[in-house]
Amino acid sequence: MSGKKRNTIEGEFALIDRILKPLAAGIPAALGLTDDAAVFTPSKGNDLVLTKDAMVAGVHFRESDLPGDVSRKLLRVNLSDLAAMGASPVGYLLATFWPEDLPHNWIERFAEGLALDQAEFHVGLMGGDTVRTSGPLSLSLTAIGEVAMDKALRRNGAEEGDLIVVSGTIGDGALGLMAAGEQLSHLDPTHQEYLIDCYHLPEPRLALGQALVGKATSCIDISDGLIADIGHLTEQSRLGAAIEWAKVPLSDAAEAAVQSDKALIETVLTGGDDYELAFTLPSDRRDDLVKLAKEGGVPLTIIGEMVEGEEGVRVKQEDGSDMPLTTRGWQHF
Amino acid sequence: MSGKKRNTIEGEFALIDRILKPLAAGIPAALGLTDDAAVFTPSKGNDLVLTKDAMVAGVHFRESDLPGDVSRKLLRVNLSDLAAMGASPVGYLLATFWPEDLPHNWIERFAEGLALDQAEFHVGLMGGDTVRTSGPLSLSLTAIGEVAMDKALRRNGAEEGDLIVVSGTIGDGALGLMAAGEQLSHLDPTHQEYLIDCYHLPEPRLALGQALVGKATSCIDISDGLIADIGHLTEQSRLGAAIEWAKVPLSDAAEAAVQSDKALIETVLTGGDDYELAFTLPSDRRDDLVKLAKEGGVPLTIIGEMVEGEEGVRVKQEDGSDMPLTTRGWQHF
Repeated sequence: MSGKKRNTIEGEFALIDRILKPLAAGIPAALGLTDDAAVFTPSKGNDLVLTKDAMVAGVHFRESDLPGDVSRKLLRVNLSDLAAMGASPVGYLLATFWPEDLPHNWIERFAEGLALDQAEFHVGLMGGDTVRTSGPLSLSLTAIGEVAMDKALRRNGAEEGDLIVVSGTIGDGALGLMAAGEQLSHLDPTHQEYLIDCYHLPEPRLALGQALVGKATSCIDISDGLIADIGHLTEQSRLGAAIEWAKVPLSDAAEAAVQSDKALIETVLTGGDDYELAFTLPSDRRDDLVKLAKEGGVPLTIIGEMVEGEEGVRVKQEDGSDMPLTTRGWQHF
Repeated sequence: MSGKKRNTIEGEFALIDRILKPLAAGIPAALGLTDDAAVFTPSKGNDLVLTKDAMVAGVHFRESDLPGDVSRKLLRVNLSDLAAMGASPVGYLLATFWPEDLPHNWIERFAEGLALDQAEFHVGLMGGDTVRTSGPLSLSLTAIGEVAMDKALRRNGAEEGDLIVVSGTIGDGALGLMAAGEQLSHLDPTHQEYLIDCYHLPEPRLALGQALVGKATSCIDISDGLIADIGHLTEQSRLGAAIEWAKVPLSDAAEAAVQSDKALIETVLTGGDDYELAFTLPSDRRDDLVKLAKEGGVPLTIIGEMVEGEEGVRVKQEDGSDMPLTTRGWQHF
């Protein structure tokens, strides 16, 4: 019951720690993972931003997914939350719940994925916990970031007439999940692969989030679906939103999917897993978008505007009528 | 596979969030749990201290444990890590992995336990994630604390001749686990209850940890067992430790247990789950102990000293010989 094991022989457990420990090398805050906690000095004049997302095998990823994709996505979805607040990442803590039968090789490749993304996003492992579970592989990551004091991007600052802008393209993640489940096998294989890649390895828009600080009036990352997440902006800002479907940016692959089956429009709008940013900008700052796109390293597209006197999100179709949506989005289960 | 569920009807999930949300009320950093992340301003001149511990039903607690005890212990073991670094708690993030069949009533009582300890330790829920699992109830908590810059208590600062001091009494947690498993039913029922309470509800020594800042040369909380944890101090400080069994402070209940069965001495020394602090103090600061005990609100006992030229931890028995220990402690599994 106590979950503890005599350590006269080196346990399974120490082996896992040995695999994960190099991820903390060169991260002063981690103190070599030899202490009770991580310690770091926040930069002067900054606020700390903290987010924590959990993932479970069979729920948030497939048991057959590549271990390196699982760990990188775990880190990236948390970094995407930091991006949505305009924060720069500082580091992360990781709790892993390992099932007994998971091969060491899997854990090694999981760690390799993290090492890759640590280098890409300039973050490091600061601490965490490793435990055993009788259930499915489960993961919890806490990402820490910093942003100038009182400057964090929020969901509640949008005003009437503000432009609604999204980064990148919408719908690729949700369509990628379908493609991974062989539900889009009629599409060109290149398109299927593109969508699956988007699903597995979203790009946290950190540079864009930081560029939006002091400019965007509200911001969110699109994880639950474009409609649901813009819905969060309207709810917190006490406004409505009017979006034009024709303006929603699609990748070639998503465009092909939608052409093949109009019902997939709803998947694009409500499927989630995009991890692009949706933000609002005063309409007189429209000209800033070129510079913001450059600083953010990602195309930006105006898809609509915030409107008063309405609740929720309305999507105008090409013929001018409102799109009937059977769902408003998804909720994590 | 995606783990998402249409939210045209309010899910199970929103209900759980409704139960947990009040825990964030009045915590400015939580932003009402309406944003992507928590945001707070660290106090000037402080370092941030971050720790993350995970727990799994059937491994780290019994499925039959009271929900409020489970949540309070989860919070307390993390606060104990902050105490070991000399930090004051600021808040926490919580990831919960709920099995489908867990009654709402259980979750409500889990939240009630957290509410109690939030009030006791002046912390609040700042954010987190709620997911569904097909496995056992699993929990991950990240606690955030602050300590004066560069003043965090570490494991590596002990010097030869330093006194080894522990707070409170040792062994109650491990004996409490045995008592909860009806392995100590020959003891007086009052003693059994006392031990079980110690196991379920350890007391994080936050006031003591803070009082030790700038005074203790090294510090750790006793979670893996007295010998193992003092072993961590010796390892990080590159010294040995000599402890006298006769000086190790025992509660009346632990004393009775040890009198009933000498083999339980090893449980006391290596069983863990004490969550008392073990620290080292220069021998010329011995007189500080009275004041430190008062500030810490807990008795302090010198149990030995740090010695050079030896590895690990030696326990001297009353007859002057070294105690033979079949284990050096426990490791989390």
